[in-house]
Amino acid sequence: MVTAQYPLPVDDRHRKSFAKIATPDRLLLGPGPSNAHPTVLQALARTPVGHLDPLYIELMGEVQELLRYAWQTDNYLTLPMSGTGSAAMEATIANTVEPGDTVLVAVKGYFGLRLADMANRYRAKVKKLEKPWGQWFSLDELEAALIEYKPAILAIVHAETSTGVCQPMDGVGDLCRKHDCLLLLDTVTSLGGVPVYIDEWKVDLAYSCSQKGLSCPPGLGPFTMGSRAETKMKARTSKVPNWYLDVSLLNKYWGDDRIYHHTAPVNMNFGMREALRLLSEEGVGQAWARHRKNAEALWAGLESLGLSMHVPADRRLPTLTTVRIPEGVDGKAFSRHLLNQYGVEIGGGLGSLAGKIWRIGLMGYNSNPQNVNRLLNLFETELPRFGGYAASVA
Amino acid sequence: MVTAQYPLPVDDRHRKSFAKIATPDRLLLGPGPSNAHPTVLQALARTPVGHLDPLYIELMGEVQELLRYAWQTDNYLTLPMSGTGSAAMEATIANTVEPGDTVLVAVKGYFGLRLADMANRYRAKVKKLEKPWGQWFSLDELEAALIEYKPAILAIVHAETSTGVCQPMDGVGDLCRKHDCLLLLDTVTSLGGVPVYIDEWKVDLAYSCSQKGLSCPPGLGPFTMGSRAETKMKARTSKVPNWYLDVSLLNKYWGDDRIYHHTAPVNMNFGMREALRLLSEEGVGQAWARHRKNAEALWAGLESLGLSMHVPADRRLPTLTTVRIPEGVDGKAFSRHLLNQYGVEIGGGLGSLAGKIWRIGLMGYNSNPQNVNRLLNLFETELPRFGGYAASVA
Repeated sequence: MVTAQYPLPVDDRHRKSFAKIATPDRLLLGPGPSNAHPTVLQALARTPVGHLDPLYIELMGEVQELLRYAWQTDNYLTLPMSGTGSAAMEATIANTVEPGDTVLVAVKGYFGLRLADMANRYRAKVKKLEKPWGQWFSLDELEAALIEYKPAILAIVHAETSTGVCQPMDGVGDLCRKHDCLLLLDTVTSLGGVPVYIDEWKVDLAYSCSQKGLSCPPGLGPFTMGSRAETKMKARTSKVPNWYLDVSLLNKYWGDDRIYHHTAPVNMNFGMREALRLLSEEGVGQAWARHRKNAEALWAGLESLGLSMHVPADRRLPTLTTVRIPEGVDGKAFSRHLLNQYGVEIGGGLGSLAGKIWRIGLMGYNSNPQNVNRLLNLFETELPRFGGYAASVA
Repeated sequence: MVTAQYPLPVDDRHRKSFAKIATPDRLLLGPGPSNAHPTVLQALARTPVGHLDPLYIELMGEVQELLRYAWQTDNYLTLPMSGTGSAAMEATIANTVEPGDTVLVAVKGYFGLRLADMANRYRAKVKKLEKPWGQWFSLDELEAALIEYKPAILAIVHAETSTGVCQPMDGVGDLCRKHDCLLLLDTVTSLGGVPVYIDEWKVDLAYSCSQKGLSCPPGLGPFTMGSRAETKMKARTSKVPNWYLDVSLLNKYWGDDRIYHHTAPVNMNFGMREALRLLSEEGVGQAWARHRKNAEALWAGLESLGLSMHVPADRRLPTLTTVRIPEGVDGKAFSRHLLNQYGVEIGGGLGSLAGKIWRIGLMGYNSNPQNVNRLLNLFETELPRFGGYAASVA
């Protein structure tokens, strides 16, 4: 036997004696991740099981069924991608876009731009319909663009995490059918926290994440595909140019065949199953109402402190509030102060809103009156130290 | 305010009242996932932190440094991809292959075929050098193919999980440099359990997984890229045709810029940090020796029961043993019996080895004498009920 040669020579240059892990208990009120529900964290820490274990296969089916409930869809092809929300975003594009397809992206924030970048990489002819960050699209604007560009896919963000805007969806699906294109919807910051009706809205493709409205840590990307998108995928003349996200392969694992594709992130799916179970226990309609109620309390409180919101009330996301940083305040210094002194995370602006807004999330487990009060108290006591708001308001 | 309209109508068809999660405590001695170390599971269950939190950024650096140690490399571009090992596999190809590049894949099992499939999707000219499952390649065979096909990349699997073969690596890197091609190495079933020397072997690209030698649950895909591969990536004439796995974007997040790319799977990285910390505490050379010692005990025990191994001793993987299913035994029924009656998982054969072998993993946390004895006892007592081995041996 060969044991004699061991131990073999090893270079210890990168060997480090780090202390045991000691990450802090933050309250995450930024754009995500949000705090996970305690029982979700417990589920994550369970002993792994095999990805083809009959009991795991049963759990997969439960996750799929509860995702359908959360999304209000009957779509058979509903499953969590084994990556974060961005992987699920890419899956919607990778599976359906063929080179030369026109993809129209309605861009009103950072994540619209990401969709356009991705579609480009899959060799689509990308057309962008753009609006300033903080606005949304009317049906007329969308229809004019559909007529002008005749896209195969219209991609739009329901809940734009970079701006806090909720895109109205009434009639968008009908427009897409009228103009014979697929409707691809980003529900990253809406699933579980803001009303989403995939089937009623006639959405053909959607994706989301685990770490916001679902109260699970980041790491899985819920994905759903309706029959019109499936038809387009099946008519492809070449393989999906992305192996990991290929839904035709994934469906052989998630569907009845149970053919190994990749080793599933089983523990993340334990967490997802528990997160969805909690949502089903509460009721998704009740969860939407809770998010709305807590957001309204936050908005009222911030306004009473003299702060103003970036988005008009009727288009504001209950999950993510964008607050204008008052003139003269160093927004970054203030959020750093909240993090370092109080362990509370809020977010800053992205892109054209950098330095102009804070982004406050009340998502999933974190959407509760205690967190609203804690944050309002911090704004009230700490913001004045940063030149926060006019004395007349105080 | 709009609260009055809540709660909104919800379709409860997919709403299910599932019981609280109750996955079983399996002993996972198949091809992976393997059991995670208990402190890794504890780390997974910590409160998430933001993906741009200064303390998380520190943790990212620790993970990278300890991955370099585990892989014995100085590569700057060493990081865990936010997906499973297959995502990291795809990352090695997506970032370096340009359409029309010749990629030579040395196929001696299932995962070589997967590499070929992936390279095809990135529009490489794929050439396959094939051997029966259970064999490996000599330097002469590899050199002849390099001369014949003049590939830009040679892709080969170090530890072939489908066959249990360890590919000898001495001289392969020198050959690749002589013939001006990159060396891409699959170390999914070797990292942490079998000697791997990325720099000494002159490997340009490698990937692995979290759930085998590293004792972490599945969900992250360690990835490393040396300077020759980086040069090829930087010379690309078009963007990487995969947004999620684009190393140039990922490096802006993992490198000094700290520019948001995707929301990191922070909890999985907590687990990975703890897994790598444990490996560094033990010493990677000691871990390799431990895997070897326990595997030798397993082999000796199985042979004394009259079973034979699929791979000759000098080319056997210490992490994954392929055992021939004796004539007349229903291999699947036996492994189902172990799972259902004893909670012990072992694997079956894939592809051309389906029905012919069992695959037994002793990886990471699971590589210990107790598990060897438990499994040998089960083979000794249970296999005869399935017509296991000749009475003369018993």
